[in-house]
Amino acid sequence: MTAPKVDLNTINSPADIRRMSIDELNVLAAEMRSALMHKLSAHGGHVGPNLGMIEATIALHYVFNTPVDKIVFDVSHQTYPHKMLTGRMQAFTDPAHYNDVTGFTNPEESPDYDLFSLGHTSTSLALASGLAKARDLVGGKENVVAVIGDASLGGGEAFEGLDYGATLGTNFIVVVNDNDMSIAENHGGIYADLRLLRNTNGTAEPNLFRAFGYGYRYVHYGNSIRHLIKAFQAVKDIHHPVVVHINTMKGLGLPVAEANKEKFHYTAPFDLKTGSSLRQSPAGKEEQDYTDIFANHILDRMKDNPAITVLTAGTPGAVGFPPSRRREAGARFIDVGIAEQMAVGMTSGLAKGGIRPVFAVVSTFLQRAYDQLSQDVAINGQPAVFEVFHTGVFGMNDETHLGFFDIAMISNIPGINFLAPTCRQEFLAMTDWAVRQTAQPVVVRVPGGPVVNNPACRLLADYSEPEYEVVEQGSKVALIGAGNFFYRMKEAAAILKEKGYTPTLINPRCLSALDTRTLDTLRDYDIVITAEDGIVDGGFGQKVAAYLGEAPAKVLTLGLPKKFMNRFRASDVIHQSGLEPQQIADAAEAAMAI
Amino acid sequence: MTAPKVDLNTINSPADIRRMSIDELNVLAAEMRSALMHKLSAHGGHVGPNLGMIEATIALHYVFNTPVDKIVFDVSHQTYPHKMLTGRMQAFTDPAHYNDVTGFTNPEESPDYDLFSLGHTSTSLALASGLAKARDLVGGKENVVAVIGDASLGGGEAFEGLDYGATLGTNFIVVVNDNDMSIAENHGGIYADLRLLRNTNGTAEPNLFRAFGYGYRYVHYGNSIRHLIKAFQAVKDIHHPVVVHINTMKGLGLPVAEANKEKFHYTAPFDLKTGSSLRQSPAGKEEQDYTDIFANHILDRMKDNPAITVLTAGTPGAVGFPPSRRREAGARFIDVGIAEQMAVGMTSGLAKGGIRPVFAVVSTFLQRAYDQLSQDVAINGQPAVFEVFHTGVFGMNDETHLGFFDIAMISNIPGINFLAPTCRQEFLAMTDWAVRQTAQPVVVRVPGGPVVNNPACRLLADYSEPEYEVVEQGSKVALIGAGNFFYRMKEAAAILKEKGYTPTLINPRCLSALDTRTLDTLRDYDIVITAEDGIVDGGFGQKVAAYLGEAPAKVLTLGLPKKFMNRFRASDVIHQSGLEPQQIADAAEAAMAI
Repeated sequence: MTAPKVDLNTINSPADIRRMSIDELNVLAAEMRSALMHKLSAHGGHVGPNLGMIEATIALHYVFNTPVDKIVFDVSHQTYPHKMLTGRMQAFTDPAHYNDVTGFTNPEESPDYDLFSLGHTSTSLALASGLAKARDLVGGKENVVAVIGDASLGGGEAFEGLDYGATLGTNFIVVVNDNDMSIAENHGGIYADLRLLRNTNGTAEPNLFRAFGYGYRYVHYGNSIRHLIKAFQAVKDIHHPVVVHINTMKGLGLPVAEANKEKFHYTAPFDLKTGSSLRQSPAGKEEQDYTDIFANHILDRMKDNPAITVLTAGTPGAVGFPPSRRREAGARFIDVGIAEQMAVGMTSGLAKGGIRPVFAVVSTFLQRAYDQLSQDVAINGQPAVFEVFHTGVFGMNDETHLGFFDIAMISNIPGINFLAPTCRQEFLAMTDWAVRQTAQPVVVRVPGGPVVNNPACRLLADYSEPEYEVVEQGSKVALIGAGNFFYRMKEAAAILKEKGYTPTLINPRCLSALDTRTLDTLRDYDIVITAEDGIVDGGFGQKVAAYLGEAPAKVLTLGLPKKFMNRFRASDVIHQSGLEPQQIADAAEAAMAI
Repeated sequence: MTAPKVDLNTINSPADIRRMSIDELNVLAAEMRSALMHKLSAHGGHVGPNLGMIEATIALHYVFNTPVDKIVFDVSHQTYPHKMLTGRMQAFTDPAHYNDVTGFTNPEESPDYDLFSLGHTSTSLALASGLAKARDLVGGKENVVAVIGDASLGGGEAFEGLDYGATLGTNFIVVVNDNDMSIAENHGGIYADLRLLRNTNGTAEPNLFRAFGYGYRYVHYGNSIRHLIKAFQAVKDIHHPVVVHINTMKGLGLPVAEANKEKFHYTAPFDLKTGSSLRQSPAGKEEQDYTDIFANHILDRMKDNPAITVLTAGTPGAVGFPPSRRREAGARFIDVGIAEQMAVGMTSGLAKGGIRPVFAVVSTFLQRAYDQLSQDVAINGQPAVFEVFHTGVFGMNDETHLGFFDIAMISNIPGINFLAPTCRQEFLAMTDWAVRQTAQPVVVRVPGGPVVNNPACRLLADYSEPEYEVVEQGSKVALIGAGNFFYRMKEAAAILKEKGYTPTLINPRCLSALDTRTLDTLRDYDIVITAEDGIVDGGFGQKVAAYLGEAPAKVLTLGLPKKFMNRFRASDVIHQSGLEPQQIADAAEAAMAI
């Protein structure tokens, strides 16, 4: 008997795999794994989550009648196998088409099989609860399946969804993909219970899922198509909420990824054999970006100040804290798991207890803790410090991970001092002050884009009150550039100076309050232009425009559009937004000519 | 033997009760209950939560060495007994001092005993985790206690806190005050488990708290000081996280409150014997406010459109859905419990499944679902409908419950159409359109203040694009009043007309996008004034000011200050913000004179 063969390029939809034998499905899995490894090593992407979910994805589409039956994948960074089986195989087998798909489910790619565009964790249970309730209200019969990883389960919306979903009383199937890992290690009491369940073949009490009110099935061989099919068939068309807890291996099939799960959660292109990155580090540069600069600096400060404690919420590597630095910080490094609400609330308690908490967080994920910033921290005036990374147009460029909404979100919460450093020197000075002072909550917006060294930047010993840096004093035209966009303004000023103008160039330093003394000096200018690396709406420039609303000076507010953009090039957005230095200079000149 | 006597006015601090016998403590509880009932019936407030927690509060302060030991009360609307025992007794025994205290813990009232100002649910575990971790880092020995109700436990931040807190590995005591009620009934799978635990004297499995990793004690007689003291003494100075699950009776001692827990969760002054409200309803007025108007109208629409489904998140009564209306809506009314993230995520799933979801929510609580509005709903363009109640300066006036941040929060999220009706007629027209259309998410900002009937309001059949209503066409001065503040502008216009001016009066209808066609007609005006019932920062007026920033017209943006205010009078804030019609007219006149 010869082994069955499967040609990936003949798989156009799940119907094509429902005709296969288990042996063929196993070959399919092997072929998919091989294709995925080649694409991932050449192209980068989410390695571990996808290699671990190949078998489960095959089994789901084999058992459930998709797209009539509905599957919502939490965070959806594990949906490369799903995309391969639902009409997008070429994007994984043909290098010329690698960029045809995004890294997340996307209804524009597949209206039938991708139900939602999503990329933040912990949303699947709420979304699927809505689908299930809608089905019940309209009299449908389809299965509704939510697939959620063990790490995503620790987010507040997931718990709320787990809690509410249990009450649906009808078909609601939750597949818990348990690979015993978050991006880094998991943190939370539930993980001891998941481990207990894994170690007892799902038989132990307490059982978290039963405590929430679910029926429960455990699949120890979560990378065995045969076992998975059996389990999914057993719950298909079930009339009550049930959890299928599957034990999978993150990175399965790629030894370097199995051995180093954190590094291979998401990675740039790498050598398939050695696992080493194919991207060269700049020679002699130990500190490549602001995450390294931050981490090294704060670790240094922690040596002198035993009160400083760093927190992260599930993304330590993305903010400069890989395992080595976490070990260095010891007990004064806290990762709470994917639980930003908890992290922000905890900073308030830590500060109240005499600790100087520094929560390092990715801009888009801080969105999950808006109310905690307001209620837990700001109302209480607790001097917690927040370092917001991956901000602006140079941050991530998936529509679900945009880093340019934080100015509008944070700068309008009372009582928070929101600082926008322009360069490395100012970033460190503001961070040092924020940690030193104990009067107010401070958010430091880590600059986007490449690191800028600017020894000429005038630093302050105290950033508690807004005080703009007038870098160049001129007349008639003022250019106010916040954060990393300051340097666009500086370049625009140079262009204008060549033309004989004498622009005033300002670094505002602060996004949450106005330096009205300095702004008053601009009242009779011809034109004041602001630029910020965030959406214009609700941002810094609009505050300036309103303040100068009754003054003779014209005001032009530049920034990014209020829009969800996907897979854009930063340079395109900057051009379309009139943010190139030449465009800014032209706008200034045009305004003065009127 | 005579019964012991306790004079409440001799209780100045917890030390005073630690000398008492159990019999004396029981008398103390009775005296406190009597005083509370008198104050609550005369003054209004949170009735049920406080009457149920008298004994537990006494036992906590008796056993734990407060203020060295630290207690964080979740949501803190159950802390009247705590205030009585911590130096604020007179505010509960002397009617002349009833207003000396707020309804929530407040460090300004008691820096030692009130650790945080808080009023949103589900925050205590995160805050207390921070206190406990800080204690461990600085080498302290005190107990850290979080007191949280069964309803608050269902919020995302509470679950995250429960999850993380379990990993602390040191003293962390969670008292779960289980009265089997939210404001209304509880919703969620965990409540079946809590019931099971109550019915088995805490012995059953599955046990939610053990599943999260906690030690566990159950106190069946949660209103027995003797039983409570025994339980708290058993966990005092414990070296690991533990839950003490106490079974209490909401509203204990007041028969009308015991019998009608939802109505007596929070109430205006009432007759102690009958429970009937002491506030008169206006004669012949069935619909007293916008919550009634909304509920009656949407119930009517639901008769014709079987897809309409109303959601609430734990506060059905506050948005017009007391039990009678919930029964009327049947399966098409969904309360998810105190879980706004879940509710917002679910609306997206419901809309995707063909339902027309309408989430009715209190402004301040929608803050907990900022990221879900952005990610689950707006990115996906799902046509969910949100009705935001208790907005603006006329909404609630506790610093933790302010309703004037929602414009800055919502209007800067891409893809959401945020409408601000000015009157009853427009409110209903916008709601009808929002439910009818299926192209986009729509938020309707329910007007604050008394209901305004304005049959002259020009309604639209389609609100998808911003289109301002030019109510009066004039020249030189334009008054743009959003939502309920439109009428301030109308009054200001009348004053200006008496003085011979001809103001243009505009209702902008939409807060999230500009009607640039109409705004362009104002470019050469002398002055354009905007007014909105929300903070100026990040709001509507600043968008107008920025848009007209290069136009000759001066722009003045009026609105509320970016500030947490506590127990303010709306009229004071309006005056201080220059929002009285006469002030607005004066400002317009002054601007034109320059």
